[in-house]
Amino acid sequence: MSTKKVTNLLETPQPPPPQMTFQGRKLPDHLINFASPAGKELFKQALNDGYAEGYFNLSSCFSHQMEPAYCGLSSLSIVLNALQVTGAPVWKGPWRWWSDELLNCCAEIEIVKKSGVTFDQFACLARCHCDTIVKRANKVSKEEFISDLKSVCSRSDIFMIISFSRQAMQQTGDGHFSPIGAYNSEQNMALVLDTAR
Amino acid sequence: MSTKKVTNLLETPQPPPPQMTFQGRKLPDHLINFASPAGKELFKQALNDGYAEGYFNLSSCFSHQMEPAYCGLSSLSIVLNALQVTGAPVWKGPWRWWSDELLNCCAEIEIVKKSGVTFDQFACLARCHCDTIVKRANKVSKEEFISDLKSVCSRSDIFMIISFSRQAMQQTGDGHFSPIGAYNSEQNMALVLDTAR
Repeated sequence: MSTKKVTNLLETPQPPPPQMTFQGRKLPDHLINFASPAGKELFKQALNDGYAEGYFNLSSCFSHQMEPAYCGLSSLSIVLNALQVTGAPVWKGPWRWWSDELLNCCAEIEIVKKSGVTFDQFACLARCHCDTIVKRANKVSKEEFISDLKSVCSRSDIFMIISFSRQAMQQTGDGHFSPIGAYNSEQNMALVLDTAR
Repeated sequence: MSTKKVTNLLETPQPPPPQMTFQGRKLPDHLINFASPAGKELFKQALNDGYAEGYFNLSSCFSHQMEPAYCGLSSLSIVLNALQVTGAPVWKGPWRWWSDELLNCCAEIEIVKKSGVTFDQFACLARCHCDTIVKRANKVSKEEFISDLKSVCSRSDIFMIISFSRQAMQQTGDGHFSPIGAYNSEQNMALVLDTAR
């Protein structure tokens, strides 16, 4: 999880140096780790200001994605579990649970495994399972986006999943989906519950 | 996740009524849901009292268990990731990550899949990967347990995994492992980051 400055969504990409394997990646300096002293403080403020109301349901249902390209499916599963949407598929034994690898709608799971879902496929997939409002970043003002962040983060019956460029955030990869966990209005920063490991 | 009263660990078991499949189970009345108004309040108090310091690393690394009997492996994986213990196995592609299904030490994974790990196997498994202090409930006073809860929850470089009876908590199943996320000293309650879905 990381706290990301809303204003920095369009910064210049800086590809990471080549390496064989990675056990996590260091966050770029403009992003703040949730578990760092600054991240804790930002979260406390958001909590005290009433902008982390949905965080508790989301974090109770949080799981990392099962495949590197399942960020969309994983984000949606977390939200469906947080909303307690009924009719979840049987996971194991008698247990039903919304799980990324069991979401099979709008896109073939084997293709998703290779290349993920597009924005439109994600919207279609969300509509299959719950009431959905779809907004494209280029059709929404920054003011509306921030107003939506505030409104969503002050409730626990509606959640926001953002589709964003990890490259633009100077992170590994590019197109990515993750739920928003909280909003700090004092610093204008959002808590991204990153589904990547 | 649920907040569980430390004093209620030994209550009389009450088996759940038979059903075909379950999408989550209602918590017994003596346990408080993390995402309920009372759960949020307990967490806020713990946070403000400095007894949720390790929560942020744990919740960043939290994932649900991959098999119904993987509670021990899953709890240990979460803690190993939270501690950033190096040498994690390769998960997918170039990514290394401690993951329950990749922990293969002290117990055969196929046997664990069927029947989980015992307390001693869990201790052995933990010792394979990190510095470990093992304490048996019947050798520890309640005062020492609470003192340990306080000490662990006020740091983010040491974590506690408890082995407890879900049956004694009036929950489904019996022997279970989960990490402790926070401690509320005013109500003497601990936040159990339950790895079950």
